[in-house]
Amino acid sequence: MKAIIHALNKAFESRVRLGIMSVLAVNDALDFNSLKEYLELTDGNLASHLKALEKEELIGINKTFIGRKPNTSYFITKAGRKAFEEHLAALESLIRSQK
Amino acid sequence: MKAIIHALNKAFESRVRLGIMSVLAVNDALDFNSLKEYLELTDGNLASHLKALEKEELIGINKTFIGRKPNTSYFITKAGRKAFEEHLAALESLIRSQK
Repeated sequence: MKAIIHALNKAFESRVRLGIMSVLAVNDALDFNSLKEYLELTDGNLASHLKALEKEELIGINKTFIGRKPNTSYFITKAGRKAFEEHLAALESLIRSQK
Repeated sequence: MKAIIHALNKAFESRVRLGIMSVLAVNDALDFNSLKEYLELTDGNLASHLKALEKEELIGINKTFIGRKPNTSYFITKAGRKAFEEHLAALESLIRSQK
């Protein structure tokens, strides 16, 4: 059990972060409003978790323009995908240990 | 995805709590030192999480004596087992959504 717990990644401890990573893992990129809608979160809640994930380089940001309007989209980084897959694998072994 | 994220239980949002519940779910009761050893935690870290789980009645405490020495052991409550199983089921569907 020790090994399983220590294999879990502190960066993904919150439901919101699990949600962000899960959604970005199956989409090339999503903008703020799509993420907000997808996960039913407040602006502040989503923004703070995105900032933390970006700081750890688990997600990246693309700043582009749609017409004249600035558009920011988020994507999962290679390191982020690897870390998230390892986290899910640890969760899976934790779940298996309960069966 | 929304439903999965909201089905995750905030009380289990830390690796330590997942560890405590996982270990207590497969043991009748464990005392503080056994939990500490099992999960390789500091006294303070373990104590604060146990207190929070107990406050939400997800775990319970037994105070007995072994010889003359007081012994405190922790066990998972019925409500705790149900909440934890629901949490694991939500994690499982999150993992499946990634496959």
